Amino acid sequence: MTFPSILPPREYLGQQQRLVDAELDRLVPPESAPPETIHRAMRYSLFAGGKRIRPILCMEAAHTVCDAPDGVVAAACSLELIHTYSLIHDDLPALDNDDYRRGKLTNHKVFGDAMAILAGDALLTLAFQVLAELPVSGDRRARLIAELSTAAGTVGGMIGGQVADLEGEGKPPDQQLLETIHRAKTGALLRASLRMGAMYAGATEEQYRALSCYGEHMGLAFQIVDDILDVEESSEALGKTAGKDAQQQKITFPAVYGLPTSRSMAEAECEHAHRVLEGFGPRAVRLHELADLIVRRKS
Amino acid sequence: MTFPSILPPREYLGQQQRLVDAELDRLVPPESAPPETIHRAMRYSLFAGGKRIRPILCMEAAHTVCDAPDGVVAAACSLELIHTYSLIHDDLPALDNDDYRRGKLTNHKVFGDAMAILAGDALLTLAFQVLAELPVSGDRRARLIAELSTAAGTVGGMIGGQVADLEGEGKPPDQQLLETIHRAKTGALLRASLRMGAMYAGATEEQYRALSCYGEHMGLAFQIVDDILDVEESSEALGKTAGKDAQQQKITFPAVYGLPTSRSMAEAECEHAHRVLEGFGPRAVRLHELADLIVRRKS
Repeated sequence: MTFPSILPPREYLGQQQRLVDAELDRLVPPESAPPETIHRAMRYSLFAGGKRIRPILCMEAAHTVCDAPDGVVAAACSLELIHTYSLIHDDLPALDNDDYRRGKLTNHKVFGDAMAILAGDALLTLAFQVLAELPVSGDRRARLIAELSTAAGTVGGMIGGQVADLEGEGKPPDQQLLETIHRAKTGALLRASLRMGAMYAGATEEQYRALSCYGEHMGLAFQIVDDILDVEESSEALGKTAGKDAQQQKITFPAVYGLPTSRSMAEAECEHAHRVLEGFGPRAVRLHELADLIVRRKS
Repeated sequence: MTFPSILPPREYLGQQQRLVDAELDRLVPPESAPPETIHRAMRYSLFAGGKRIRPILCMEAAHTVCDAPDGVVAAACSLELIHTYSLIHDDLPALDNDDYRRGKLTNHKVFGDAMAILAGDALLTLAFQVLAELPVSGDRRARLIAELSTAAGTVGGMIGGQVADLEGEGKPPDQQLLETIHRAKTGALLRASLRMGAMYAGATEEQYRALSCYGEHMGLAFQIVDDILDVEESSEALGKTAGKDAQQQKITFPAVYGLPTSRSMAEAECEHAHRVLEGFGPRAVRLHELADLIVRRKS
């Protein structure tokens, strides 16, 4: 029975996080499996306190479409594997050169650059292995893999956004470029989270479109809030170096629109997200809650 | 009509290489697609003169099973995408720190470390996208993806072998460790090339096992010859820095067995490979030729 339970939003979120953590633990080879170092490195970043937003959005999308879609948590974990690989590679000295992430030393600070590169590669590879071995029809597995690889790729996907972001450093603030970067860099994978949950659960075309649209709005809201937090919060609260965006002359929402307008924009995206869920009625209660939690988060 | 044509082995190989090159060109976004830098970086290494051994082995495995398996060249290209990503990442300063590959500057020497890391990530991601979008049944696509991701992964796969290799540097030469490293580091992907061709063409269980076994023997033969060439050939002939294995105190076949025994071992693996093809009769003529070409190559 997965119909909205009576757990308050934060407790429910905690429960879902534990579900994702347990599944990730099952999917990733144990630290004792040789070569041990790489499995230790993969697990170090994977279990460093991530909020599991992408897998939880994926699972909630599935639950919104149908009761108890068996095994969706494994599909959802593929998104966290991709997200974690991207963080490990982004933190490398050659890229953002960050020493801390979620309050802990970054992967390469603990395991060295070589192992961090390989651990990222391994998590990326494992994401597709997990999807290829799901207990659903081959057609559905292939469709999930096509969605995830596109969202993580270079054309409108995560890597493309990362490159545009790197190349945008030091350029004059530009609304068009800002949106292009963020739609790709974080938006594509967040939208894919919703889409994959919808696909997994066998959504109708209309349900799929609504969830995808919710994902787009939440992807943008998520990134705007991320940019705002980088300006407003301390490094301690964020668990990573704050103020890096300004220091690296990144194109961000506060840089282009200022803080007050950025805040209203995040709220507006969140409102849009609520609205596209209307057709689902009470089934979408958890997605409504998640939208509010994402926009009001402090780290 | 794909029954052995009358082209001599090297001309046939050249023809197949051109087929692979044309398909890779079709599969990878053009340099003009934004963000342009990443597509330029991906294409730079992809079209840097690779011999296309893995895709050609894949296509030949398919041809050995059935005539003209439509579209197998796209499946075959996924292997070259994985192989190329692994070379780009291996060459990075944090790993093997190589300036030349196939006689050209390595990816990071041209595009910088950040772009080289992302270009590798992008090729790895694209490999799975290509397979997910093949014009065959979903079940077959998922099976191909499971095989490729396992072969490229950490448990007995390419990344696992790479880590064991890094950790083996400076250790005393050891036969068991040597074989473990090479079966994973190069063997798994070469075996996957044969297996994926067999799967694609709908091989029987017996055909699949024979082709997989040929792949294992050729994988080992390929690596033994690679180790020998690193000792015997000049950097100019190899197009990359020769003598690096000894310099980095890598565990290699010549280091463990000496050159003459290593040579006999490569020949023995090749002989085994020929033998397991016997059941295919003349259909396997190109795989027989490839075995000989691989063992007698000079770079």
